[in-house]
Amino acid sequence: MNDDDLVLQANESFYKAFSERDIAAMEALWARRAPVACIHPGWGALVTREAVMTSWQGILSSTNAPKVTCRGARAFVIGDVAFVICFEMVEGGYLIATNIFAREDGIWRMTHHQAGPTNDAPPEEKPAPAKPSKTIH
Amino acid sequence: MNDDDLVLQANESFYKAFSERDIAAMEALWARRAPVACIHPGWGALVTREAVMTSWQGILSSTNAPKVTCRGARAFVIGDVAFVICFEMVEGGYLIATNIFAREDGIWRMTHHQAGPTNDAPPEEKPAPAKPSKTIH
Repeated sequence: MNDDDLVLQANESFYKAFSERDIAAMEALWARRAPVACIHPGWGALVTREAVMTSWQGILSSTNAPKVTCRGARAFVIGDVAFVICFEMVEGGYLIATNIFAREDGIWRMTHHQAGPTNDAPPEEKPAPAKPSKTIH
Repeated sequence: MNDDDLVLQANESFYKAFSERDIAAMEALWARRAPVACIHPGWGALVTREAVMTSWQGILSSTNAPKVTCRGARAFVIGDVAFVICFEMVEGGYLIATNIFAREDGIWRMTHHQAGPTNDAPPEEKPAPAKPSKTIH
């Protein structure tokens, strides 16, 4: 797999851990040495691995934890750091997210996440363009 | 200056170009070779330098362009890539942003920006904690 694929795979692991409420998987996929930060929708910034993990423990253990599915992810690799832009389908609506990854010991690990509201939707959710009319006038 | 300071200086240049509606400065500070993307508040993702610059031309030339001031910026450097988390003061309220920079020819240039709503505020805007009482009982 090339780096784009590996980064998208790491991004998918994040949403899998989120949707399965798997705190061990969530802890495994965040960076050990690179800085760790997180901006949950509407929140301020959490900085330090400890603060971010505490927030995930709270979110994933809540009975109100939302179901989140990733759509339309695109990876942008810059050497040993990459960012992914993707939609998050949450309760029938969409958020849009930036996820940053750093390569540590050959593994792409998450260093930052920000999600917020969007008026846009993934390409597959948009209505197909109207068929051009075959009438000349 | 160390990398943290240089990245914060590049971040400040972004908000200066924004508030002064300086499209030439805005074009100068975005990456030439690294990927360029941008998620304006509520928008979908713009991808490619051309799409992002077209959006800035529209925003900066509008008579309704909001006044934006950066507050509480913090830089996180990972080799030749860095991200900044900061508040954006806009019309008396706050947004929170992630700005990603890449070092190109020794210069930190912007590769991605996402801003969205937050319920938080910069430290200097928060009320000071109540003084502990000196009364023992």
